[in-house]
Amino acid sequence: MTDVDPEASRRAYELDRAHVFHSWVAQGPHRPMVVARAEGSYLWDGEGRRLLDFSSQLVNTNIGHQHPRVVAAIQEQAALLCTVAPQHANAARSEAARLVVERAPEGLGKVFFTNGGADANEHAVRMARLHTGRPKVLTTYRSYHGGTQTAINLTGDPRRWANDTASAGVVHVQGPFLYRSPFWATTEEEESARALEHLEQVVALEGPSTIAAVLLETVPGTAGIMLPPPGYLAGVRELCHRHGILLVLDEVMAGFGRTGAWFARDHWGVVPDLMTFAKGVNSGYVPLGGVLIGDHVAATFDERPYPGGLTYSGHPLACAAAVATITAMADEGVVENAARVGAEVLGPGLAELAERHPVVGEVRGLGVFWALELVRDRGTREALAPYGGSSAEMGALVAVCKERGLLPFTNGGRLHVVPPCTVSDAEAKEGLGILDEALAVVDAML
Amino acid sequence: MTDVDPEASRRAYELDRAHVFHSWVAQGPHRPMVVARAEGSYLWDGEGRRLLDFSSQLVNTNIGHQHPRVVAAIQEQAALLCTVAPQHANAARSEAARLVVERAPEGLGKVFFTNGGADANEHAVRMARLHTGRPKVLTTYRSYHGGTQTAINLTGDPRRWANDTASAGVVHVQGPFLYRSPFWATTEEEESARALEHLEQVVALEGPSTIAAVLLETVPGTAGIMLPPPGYLAGVRELCHRHGILLVLDEVMAGFGRTGAWFARDHWGVVPDLMTFAKGVNSGYVPLGGVLIGDHVAATFDERPYPGGLTYSGHPLACAAAVATITAMADEGVVENAARVGAEVLGPGLAELAERHPVVGEVRGLGVFWALELVRDRGTREALAPYGGSSAEMGALVAVCKERGLLPFTNGGRLHVVPPCTVSDAEAKEGLGILDEALAVVDAML
Repeated sequence: MTDVDPEASRRAYELDRAHVFHSWVAQGPHRPMVVARAEGSYLWDGEGRRLLDFSSQLVNTNIGHQHPRVVAAIQEQAALLCTVAPQHANAARSEAARLVVERAPEGLGKVFFTNGGADANEHAVRMARLHTGRPKVLTTYRSYHGGTQTAINLTGDPRRWANDTASAGVVHVQGPFLYRSPFWATTEEEESARALEHLEQVVALEGPSTIAAVLLETVPGTAGIMLPPPGYLAGVRELCHRHGILLVLDEVMAGFGRTGAWFARDHWGVVPDLMTFAKGVNSGYVPLGGVLIGDHVAATFDERPYPGGLTYSGHPLACAAAVATITAMADEGVVENAARVGAEVLGPGLAELAERHPVVGEVRGLGVFWALELVRDRGTREALAPYGGSSAEMGALVAVCKERGLLPFTNGGRLHVVPPCTVSDAEAKEGLGILDEALAVVDAML
Repeated sequence: MTDVDPEASRRAYELDRAHVFHSWVAQGPHRPMVVARAEGSYLWDGEGRRLLDFSSQLVNTNIGHQHPRVVAAIQEQAALLCTVAPQHANAARSEAARLVVERAPEGLGKVFFTNGGADANEHAVRMARLHTGRPKVLTTYRSYHGGTQTAINLTGDPRRWANDTASAGVVHVQGPFLYRSPFWATTEEEESARALEHLEQVVALEGPSTIAAVLLETVPGTAGIMLPPPGYLAGVRELCHRHGILLVLDEVMAGFGRTGAWFARDHWGVVPDLMTFAKGVNSGYVPLGGVLIGDHVAATFDERPYPGGLTYSGHPLACAAAVATITAMADEGVVENAARVGAEVLGPGLAELAERHPVVGEVRGLGVFWALELVRDRGTREALAPYGGSSAEMGALVAVCKERGLLPFTNGGRLHVVPPCTVSDAEAKEGLGILDEALAVVDAML
C-alpha cells in the first residue's frame, strides 16, 4: 500500500516541467523525481517506488519524514493562528525561542528568527558589522552559507563562482582539511596548528581592526564534512577574542542533532558570539531559520534600533513546528540515537566499506553526518569528479543507488551519508548494503 | 467568548522579552502586544481585547485571518507531506506554479519559489544581471524591497540607511509623487512626463549598456502607496525595451488582490520581464515568495545552470497554502470585494474624513491599499513626523486607534489603511469611525 496515484504524479511532473524553475540546475535537461509521500526514513516516488532517504532531502529532515507529533503541532497551530507580524508577540514564537536558547551555550540568550539559513547568515554578519563597526568578514573556502547575495559571497564553494560580485568585505581563508591539506601537513595536530597560523597571518595582513567576524561552519557540510582537528576551534576562538573579532558559527546543517549533539559546537566546547541555525530546528517542515545572539551583541541594539527585519520573522506556524520538533527529539532521544548509530553502525560500517572498495579514499564524520572521498587512485587521491563538477562514475553511483532503493547525497567526487537522526540500526544497515553494491559498480568502472 | 488565556499570554510576553530579538526596533524599550488569536478582519490581544486589523499584519493577510479553507489545506498537506528538496517535483508546488502563472501576464510562464519577498527580489536581480550581462540596477527612492543585504540596498526608504554598504551596482532615481513632487510638477500628467525624463537622463548618464534592470514596486507600498500617474509605467516599459534593460516589477505588497486586481500591473497593462511576489500569495500563512520569469529570461537558464537556490524553494506546505488561498480568493470573489470596498466605502469614506480633518493633507489609493498624508499645515505640507521618524502626534494617533479597538498601520507621517481584501462594508465603516475619532484627537493637538 503506497497510496500513490501515478496519474496525479504524471500531472505533477508535467506541470513542474511547464512552470517550475528549479534551484542550481540548467532547466532544460532537468528531470526531477516526483516525491509523492514520505514517512520516517523513506519516501515514495511518483510511481510508488520506495526509497531509503540517505539525503534527508537537503540534510534537513533530522527527525525523519512526517513525524506525527510535529504534524499534529502544525495542524493545531494552523487551527489557532497561522501568522502574526514580527513586531507583536506570540506564544509559539516565545516558546520556540526559549527551547532554542536552552540548548545553546550560556550567554547566547536571544534569538532573531528568519526564514532559513541564508538570511540567518546575512543578519548575523550585519549584527557583527554593526556591533564592531568593522567591515570585513573572514570565511573559509570549501564552505556554504546560503543563496542570497551576501550569503553566496560568503560561501567558499563553487556555487559562489557565478555570483562573485558585491563581495566587498569578504575574505576567504583556507580551513583545516588534512586529506587535501592546503598546509602540507601530515597529522591532524599539524593541520590544526598550521590552519591557525595561516588564519593569524591573514588577520594580520588584512588588519585586525578591519575585521568584524570570522564565520565558520562548525563542521563544513555540503563542502565536505571536515571535522575540525584538535585545538582548531579553540584556537580560532582565542584569536578572535585577542583581536576583538566576533566568532560566528554556522550550524545550519550541523545543528539540531546531525552530529549526535544538539549543536556541533558541543563536541568542542567553543562558545561563539553569534550562531546561526535552520533546517533541523524543525526539520524544514515549515521554513525557519535564526540567529542565536550573544548577550553583549544583543545589548548593542538595546537602545539603538536593529536595522533589519522580515515579514515572517518568528512565524507562529514555523515556531510551533520547532517547539514540537525539539520537544519530540528530547523526549525520544533522537540526538542520542544519531550519536549511537554513528558510533556503532555507520562509522564501523563505512570503515568496512572503505577497506573493501579501492574507490573510497577516506571516510570521515560523526553522528549521521559522514563523507566518503571517492578517488580514482588512493595514492594520488585524484577525485572521482573534478572540484564542483561531475563524472560518469559519480552518475553511475547515483543511478545504481536509486535503482536499488536508496536516495543518496553527492557533491563533486564525494558521497555524503546523511540519513535522518531517527534512522534505525536496520535502516542504516540496509543503506550500507546498497552503498556496498553501488561502490562495487564504480570500482569495476575504474 | 474569546478563548484567550491571560496567564498564557503573560508567559508569552515574558519569554518574548527574555529571548526574542525583534525586527527594526531598539530591543530595550520594545513592548510588544501579544496576539493570542485572530479571525477574519479581527485579532485578540493577550487580555482578550478585540481589535479590527486595519494593518493586515504587515499588509499580508489579504484573505483575512484564519480562512477555513486555507487552514484545512495546510492541515491536509501537513498530514501528507510537509517538505521535499527543491530538486525534486511535488504536486503542491506544481499546482501553485500553475495557478500563479495563470494570473500573470502572458509570457511569464515559470515561477522560482523563494521564502519571501526579500529573496524573491535578490533572485530577480541576479537573473537580470546574468541575462543581460550588465551590472547595475536602477530603483527608486521611497521604495522597499526587503531586508537581506542586496534587497535592503535596492530599497529607497530610511531602512536602507544603516545598511548602506555593498550597494555597488545600485542607483536610485526619483519616482513620480505629485504631492511632494521632486520635479516641480503641478499635474499628474506633468509629474509622469518629468519622472520619465528624469529616468531617461539617469539612464543616459549611467550608461544604458551598464544597466541590467529597472526595479519598481508597481505601487510603492510602505514608502507611501503612490499610484503611478498616467503613462508612467508604459513609458518605463518603452524606455527599458529601447535600451535592452529588463523591467522588474515588485508586487510583494501590491499583488494578490491588494489593489482590487490579482496584480497591480493589471490596472496599467504593463508587462514586466520579471515580477516578484510574496505576502498575499498565501496571505503569509506559511512563508512563501517567488519570481515570475519571462520566457526569454528563463531560456537563458535552459542549458546554463541557474546559480541560485534555497532549501525551501517550492516548499509543499507553503505551496498548498497558496493553492488554497488563490482558489478561495477566486471562488469567493475576494479580489472583486477589495475593488468594490475601495471604490464604494473606503475611497469615499476617507475623502470625507479628509474634508473634515485639517491634519489630512492627501488621500490616495485603490482597493484596500490607501495612504493618508498627515500634515501640520495643508499649505506647507509639513509632515506630521519627519521622513523616517516619529512624533508625539503620530504616537497619539496609534494609541487612540488601539484604545478604541483598531490596529493601524503607520509609517513616518502617514497612516495607511490596509485591511484584508475580505473586509466587509460594515467592518470598513467601523474602521472609518474609529479613524474619525483618532484624527479628531490629532487635530486638537495641532
